[in-house]
Amino acid sequence: MRNLLFTLSYDGTAYHGWQVQKNADTVQKRFQNALETVTGERSGVVGCSRTDAGVHAKMFCCNSKVSTKIPEKNLIRALNCNLPDDIAVTDICEKDMEFHARYSCKGKEYLYNIWNSHIRDPFVNRYSMRYDMKLDIDTLNEGCKAFIGKHDFAGFCSAGSNVQDTIRTIYDAHFERKEDMVRLYISGDGFLYNMVRIIVGTFLYVAQGKIEVGDLKSIIDSTERNRAGITAPAHGLFLNKVFY
Amino acid sequence: MRNLLFTLSYDGTAYHGWQVQKNADTVQKRFQNALETVTGERSGVVGCSRTDAGVHAKMFCCNSKVSTKIPEKNLIRALNCNLPDDIAVTDICEKDMEFHARYSCKGKEYLYNIWNSHIRDPFVNRYSMRYDMKLDIDTLNEGCKAFIGKHDFAGFCSAGSNVQDTIRTIYDAHFERKEDMVRLYISGDGFLYNMVRIIVGTFLYVAQGKIEVGDLKSIIDSTERNRAGITAPAHGLFLNKVFY
Repeated sequence: MRNLLFTLSYDGTAYHGWQVQKNADTVQKRFQNALETVTGERSGVVGCSRTDAGVHAKMFCCNSKVSTKIPEKNLIRALNCNLPDDIAVTDICEKDMEFHARYSCKGKEYLYNIWNSHIRDPFVNRYSMRYDMKLDIDTLNEGCKAFIGKHDFAGFCSAGSNVQDTIRTIYDAHFERKEDMVRLYISGDGFLYNMVRIIVGTFLYVAQGKIEVGDLKSIIDSTERNRAGITAPAHGLFLNKVFY
Repeated sequence: MRNLLFTLSYDGTAYHGWQVQKNADTVQKRFQNALETVTGERSGVVGCSRTDAGVHAKMFCCNSKVSTKIPEKNLIRALNCNLPDDIAVTDICEKDMEFHARYSCKGKEYLYNIWNSHIRDPFVNRYSMRYDMKLDIDTLNEGCKAFIGKHDFAGFCSAGSNVQDTIRTIYDAHFERKEDMVRLYISGDGFLYNMVRIIVGTFLYVAQGKIEVGDLKSIIDSTERNRAGITAPAHGLFLNKVFY
């Protein structure tokens, strides 16, 4: 048996997220089917996280224990031939048998795209939320400091999650602007259900003056969901990097 | 009456090109319907060119004579509210009554994207053809010189065109590489049916050694379609700029 780590990239527009669900098309379902077609064996696939419906991944990792002897390079090619255009396997490497895509993960970086313009751009629509009011990057970056470090993020978690431990450590968070595109990069040891999207929604409240930058710390500490902002739409969010 | 020049941008994936056709969804149809909804009048719309099914436009121009008094800025907003996400009006300006989006056009620049990698990228699939063999930019740029200037491009025109005059002037043509993305920029006073896509297909023959760079001049001069390369796929092509 070989324990293989697969690196994927996918446009999540057409999928109900990563995780296999009944009566819904998911990335895991497509990947498992391709793996079965290529190897002739049905193997369990473990993803590094669940991504929500419509969320994209520039980098997503999963592992599977397979008995196939097909070399990694050929396996990449064969899997890509059996996957739709919006999902790609970009790398495969062999790990020891203890490796687990979720439990071995040391952290992740998410990217959220905000198209900050009065005019939509048909080429970035699929991959960004549009926001046409002023976004001051310096103010937003000042606000980022409140999130960095170890906090109880219970207030930044949507209902429907059954996670008990809501304490997470944010390694870094910062905004960058390139012309009309504003990007939030945020990395940490883990993220709660909808956490990045709620953080983005909270920053939009900051931009609108509904929340003061100086109040962010107490909003986090309150662990009250209703003190944070809205949940920003899924299609601006990318799982950008996965660390092992 | 006001003669308005509209600048559009569109993702052509879902459309059968610009031009109105029976039983097909086209960009012109969508735009005319939006204009009628907003102004309450049915006005003829003249496009700067036809784009083929699946071809994109970062910049496309059209004009229409309208009696509405809605200011340009409000008209942009109202039209965008009545257009689908993959079509945007980015600018409107008033021209004199003689202005004609096609006849007044002094030239156009097309862009063709080639994703030059063994691995597909789900985020560039829609906007590039994938080609996984070696592309030497210096060789391709050497070949570009044969196209620049005034030539009879009858050999670079698909059947089905009813154009009589096949002489066109190419102002500039050059390839650029940025990591795995190779881009051809080509500008000229006009382009025949499928001309850019056949030029790209011919450059792919050059890359494959099927055509020598030194033979490009005689291939153009022969005006024989069967001496040029294949027609590259539509989805890598963008109308990039329109000059007036």
